Amino acid sequence: MGAPSGVVSYLTEELVRQGHQVTLFASGDSKTRAILRASCSRALRLDPQCKDPLPYHFISLYRLAQAADAFDIIHFHTDYLHFALFAHLWGKTLTTLHGRLDLPDLRPMLHEFAMMPLVSISNAQREPVPWANWYGTVHHGLPSNLYYGGRGDGGYLAFIGRICPEKRPDWAIEIARRAGMPLTVAAKVDKADLAYHENRIKPLLEDPRIDFIGEIGDGEKGAFLGDAAALLFPIDWPEPFGLTLIEAMANGTPVIAFRRGSVPEIVEPGVTGLIVDSVDEAVAALPLARALDRAAIRRRFEECFSVERMAQDYLRLYDAVLRGGTAGAVMNASFDAPSARC
Amino acid sequence: MGAPSGVVSYLTEELVRQGHQVTLFASGDSKTRAILRASCSRALRLDPQCKDPLPYHFISLYRLAQAADAFDIIHFHTDYLHFALFAHLWGKTLTTLHGRLDLPDLRPMLHEFAMMPLVSISNAQREPVPWANWYGTVHHGLPSNLYYGGRGDGGYLAFIGRICPEKRPDWAIEIARRAGMPLTVAAKVDKADLAYHENRIKPLLEDPRIDFIGEIGDGEKGAFLGDAAALLFPIDWPEPFGLTLIEAMANGTPVIAFRRGSVPEIVEPGVTGLIVDSVDEAVAALPLARALDRAAIRRRFEECFSVERMAQDYLRLYDAVLRGGTAGAVMNASFDAPSARC
Repeated sequence: MGAPSGVVSYLTEELVRQGHQVTLFASGDSKTRAILRASCSRALRLDPQCKDPLPYHFISLYRLAQAADAFDIIHFHTDYLHFALFAHLWGKTLTTLHGRLDLPDLRPMLHEFAMMPLVSISNAQREPVPWANWYGTVHHGLPSNLYYGGRGDGGYLAFIGRICPEKRPDWAIEIARRAGMPLTVAAKVDKADLAYHENRIKPLLEDPRIDFIGEIGDGEKGAFLGDAAALLFPIDWPEPFGLTLIEAMANGTPVIAFRRGSVPEIVEPGVTGLIVDSVDEAVAALPLARALDRAAIRRRFEECFSVERMAQDYLRLYDAVLRGGTAGAVMNASFDAPSARC
Repeated sequence: MGAPSGVVSYLTEELVRQGHQVTLFASGDSKTRAILRASCSRALRLDPQCKDPLPYHFISLYRLAQAADAFDIIHFHTDYLHFALFAHLWGKTLTTLHGRLDLPDLRPMLHEFAMMPLVSISNAQREPVPWANWYGTVHHGLPSNLYYGGRGDGGYLAFIGRICPEKRPDWAIEIARRAGMPLTVAAKVDKADLAYHENRIKPLLEDPRIDFIGEIGDGEKGAFLGDAAALLFPIDWPEPFGLTLIEAMANGTPVIAFRRGSVPEIVEPGVTGLIVDSVDEAVAALPLARALDRAAIRRRFEECFSVERMAQDYLRLYDAVLRGGTAGAVMNASFDAPSARC
């Protein structure tokens, strides 16, 4: 819940590859080399029958609680759903919070369950709740063989993700227009954003240089990002991570990203892309971005955002939890964000 | 969660009045003579700041779990939220399920937590899951001094509740029109039902004999129902209880209700109202309903739907849980629905 299922899967498989014994609590159709414990047969977000995912989460968490003795460490990606049930076992748990943390209803929860060891997916993500029980920041990572450095010779700019006000596809379109370049928009439209899409975005898609291709599958992402001259990431919200940024890097594709949320932690200006504060700056930055060395971008991805690095970071934090002993000792300890070394 | 806060409050105060020691876990603005343990200051459904009620429920449940030893019996009105956390304490819990039970995602939950003793608010409510761990049915009850027998001389029919397709305000309007009587519609319009209201109901409200007065407060209900010639209850869904039905009875007001869900358990044809299967039948039943003895309706309310009867039913079920001993023994025991005696 709240986790991009890809990231949890990459971490799981990497830990298994390194020889760790891993049990994955997920839907029955999960492809994994870990031991799989399923509370439902199909991925919840793909099951049209499933109106309420909560029951399946509760069943998984309950079964896990029954079996907790069998595990050295339990790594949760279930938002706060498990807090009450695992509070007494906090010393063998680690929780990665994947969502935005500026929602007021989350604060009392983080106060009440102040014993739960937490991981942020960027330092920026912590901003609304810096006092929470943070053990570290672990930036996401991707398997090195998921993508390869593309050639970037498709002659278009890329926008990928979701049509919604937070992602500002309208700004991406404006940037491309003013730069005189074609833009391909690979994005889904959720029900909640239908009106926004109809009223604000669709009229902009009439421009023949703007190509709206809808949602693309994981298998098409590599070619789409690898062929793009650059990725436009003109977000208008404090994005906690921005997986697309490192997917672009893995394809050797430079990004032009707005200075919000995690962007300054992920994009290295002049190396993997450029960070801007406005549409004007984005247009001006485009030639610089296109001139960046794609092989160097791919190298930075391998150095900083590989699944091996992510697994290493988490293993260090698992150790930190297990060494912790008592809540007080752990909560006063200061851990560097392992990813900060990149 | 899922419970009409009124019913839980009536039960709580009645138990206190009878001399039981009760601790109520609810919002800080709850008016109660029980000991109050609050996880938030204001009622969640009234707090515009509160977007997600789950954290507050989890905090309450966690605090309750910490203090569970202090209680003989814990009575939950929190849907299934507490199941995982209290499964090991099932033998001192009772859970009233207040919602509809035909949602497919609920079934695996009731299987997984088959040890939890459950109460239905009508026998009809159980229909989708008759195999669940039912200890009894307890119909809702109201304090006798909440309403008094009204005179029914307002010269109008009443519809009360929510504008939504399940409650069929359009049928209520059609019945009133064909009966040649004014109808007063006291109903809120939730955001989710705005389109339905605009497109389907608003045009019908142009009829001068139809008076739409919006949502009314608890203080206005007595006069509204007590002055009405009859309550129209033309529901088009398996309503698990239908509190309005007994509110009308408490005011001595006859009801004309459609044969769905709990209606046949609550309405006694020829005594407290009439049960019908169509708009035609409702129109035909109206003179019969209006001829019913309002004092007799009020008496039936006092006999069958008082808060004393509800508390008595629950006290019997608390005993049944505590006598239960083991899950097997309890699950095989058969308890009559106490309310069935009415």
